[in-house]
Amino acid sequence: MINTITWKKTYLQIIDQTKLPEKLKYIKIRDYRHVGEAIKTLSVRGAPAIGIAAAYGIYLGIQNFRSANYRAFITKLNNICKYFISTRPTAVNIEWATNMILDTVKHSNTKNISELKNIILRKAIEIHTEDIELSNSIGEYGQPLLKNGMNILTHCNAGGLATGGLGTALAVIYKAVDKGKKIRIYADETRPLLQGSRLTAYELMQNRIETVVICDNMAASMMGSKKIDAVIVGADRIAANGDTANKIGTYGLAILAKYHKIPFYVAAPYSTFDLSITSGKRIKIEQRDSNEIKKPFNIYITPKNAEVENPAFDVTPNKLITAIITDKGIIKNPDNQKIKRILTKR
Amino acid sequence: MINTITWKKTYLQIIDQTKLPEKLKYIKIRDYRHVGEAIKTLSVRGAPAIGIAAAYGIYLGIQNFRSANYRAFITKLNNICKYFISTRPTAVNIEWATNMILDTVKHSNTKNISELKNIILRKAIEIHTEDIELSNSIGEYGQPLLKNGMNILTHCNAGGLATGGLGTALAVIYKAVDKGKKIRIYADETRPLLQGSRLTAYELMQNRIETVVICDNMAASMMGSKKIDAVIVGADRIAANGDTANKIGTYGLAILAKYHKIPFYVAAPYSTFDLSITSGKRIKIEQRDSNEIKKPFNIYITPKNAEVENPAFDVTPNKLITAIITDKGIIKNPDNQKIKRILTKR
Repeated sequence: MINTITWKKTYLQIIDQTKLPEKLKYIKIRDYRHVGEAIKTLSVRGAPAIGIAAAYGIYLGIQNFRSANYRAFITKLNNICKYFISTRPTAVNIEWATNMILDTVKHSNTKNISELKNIILRKAIEIHTEDIELSNSIGEYGQPLLKNGMNILTHCNAGGLATGGLGTALAVIYKAVDKGKKIRIYADETRPLLQGSRLTAYELMQNRIETVVICDNMAASMMGSKKIDAVIVGADRIAANGDTANKIGTYGLAILAKYHKIPFYVAAPYSTFDLSITSGKRIKIEQRDSNEIKKPFNIYITPKNAEVENPAFDVTPNKLITAIITDKGIIKNPDNQKIKRILTKR
Repeated sequence: MINTITWKKTYLQIIDQTKLPEKLKYIKIRDYRHVGEAIKTLSVRGAPAIGIAAAYGIYLGIQNFRSANYRAFITKLNNICKYFISTRPTAVNIEWATNMILDTVKHSNTKNISELKNIILRKAIEIHTEDIELSNSIGEYGQPLLKNGMNILTHCNAGGLATGGLGTALAVIYKAVDKGKKIRIYADETRPLLQGSRLTAYELMQNRIETVVICDNMAASMMGSKKIDAVIVGADRIAANGDTANKIGTYGLAILAKYHKIPFYVAAPYSTFDLSITSGKRIKIEQRDSNEIKKPFNIYITPKNAEVENPAFDVTPNKLITAIITDKGIIKNPDNQKIKRILTKR
């Protein structure tokens, strides 16, 4: 397994994903603002992974808090949490992780700062450990959907590099391959930041899974020539009705899949659902720096003064989703009731 | 107007489009094989433009033919034509231009080599001059489809850089703007070779037309948020029934446009129709070098040994095309009969 995020007792170690596939470089982080920067610059990315990184980041942010004043501690903690939520607005997992930590602190029976610091670290480790299990469950629930010999299209990276464990979308593929099924992957390169060609191809090839990289605009052609049997993607935030925010381009793939009568699956843990919002219309879409489009590798591919739009995500309405694969089971034709039912399952 | 291709009495001058938008560099070509290389490497590209370049290339190929033997001359001419057809298999315009020249030679009343050379040069100039008029006609016929204030999505480059004149898809836009309509363009960057961000944005901005560059995978999101009122693209080969081969990604855009109830227009001169083939299924799709995807700007964006597919074109079935805008008029809901009727119009 890839060590995307590792807690090293006194510091956080992450893979600098901006350097892949050329270099497998690890970064050691001791300052919470550096965790925030790593999230903003996508050194660590993927909804579950940035939730985990933020959880450790919160601990790094409060570990050197010197006063014994409980209220000052809570204020500091809240500010750090707000800071992490601000780093990337679309993925819900940072918010989810901060809420988990704030709740744990609130419901603990102590106001002793040193004990609270330990409680926070334990919670971060718990979030991390749990995510590994969530990946496994998603994979196990999802793998029966993939038959031997299938060609699967995926977008962006929803693998081990995006989570604490095997991934979300890719966990389903890894588990299907573990069962002896032959699965071949088409990986959309995923402009502008190329997480598909750089990260998904990298980790699938490390795991000896046959992978074909295509440009995003080739997906329709591949579907039209019957080269794709199913689409599986991850998610950054899923509304109460199943509308799903994911990497820009996902919505288009869902329409193309519908047109070609190909199943379109979303794979995500319970922590990616945001039941506080009724539909995808209310999901905030992060707009990123125009230079991500204009000058990849620092070379202008547009006129210098060109205008661009750079939304990092789009929203796929529930009606285009064949099923959401969660750690608690599969939700076919997702809607409010089915989602509520499965998320409250014990 | 952009001097995409200029005949300079003894040599051919083209813009090296691989250098745009950074540098406006002209290349002088005196050897027909260099014309072929310029076509293969996309220094000159766009279906009508490569037809024109090939026509001049044929003249460059035979201008130094020394013998007075007519049969040897015809053999040489045929070989040069075959060479040009082989440079890029999908766009029909090279084949069309070579047929125009071969027919003219065949039906001329002379077997005098020197006269035949002059006839060929005159035909090449005629093909070039006619293409400027075709662009104008396409623009005039198409512009009423665009209303004041519309936002138009285009893909790849079907402008002045792709033709002898104003372009095909972009001619419609230029003519609409000439009539005083405010038109705003979304330009797909068009991976892998980025003709949209490099060339379309360049020429539209040169013409002071408001242009927003997006990654190919953002088109669905823009349509979903009602930012696009129509799609216009060019074509590389149109079958007798209206099925249209164009730059990879076009087919997907047509599906997305259908889903969002947005009109999808193809703009092309009569020379892009290939009535010898009944449907798009029979159009040969050029597969290009995998390194176009794997290492843009010579930097690997995939693992080095990654497998890729790199089809340069896809085929959009006629049923997804709202209308084809030609130099002879508009063909709504194109089919065999309507296409035959308009192409035989005088």
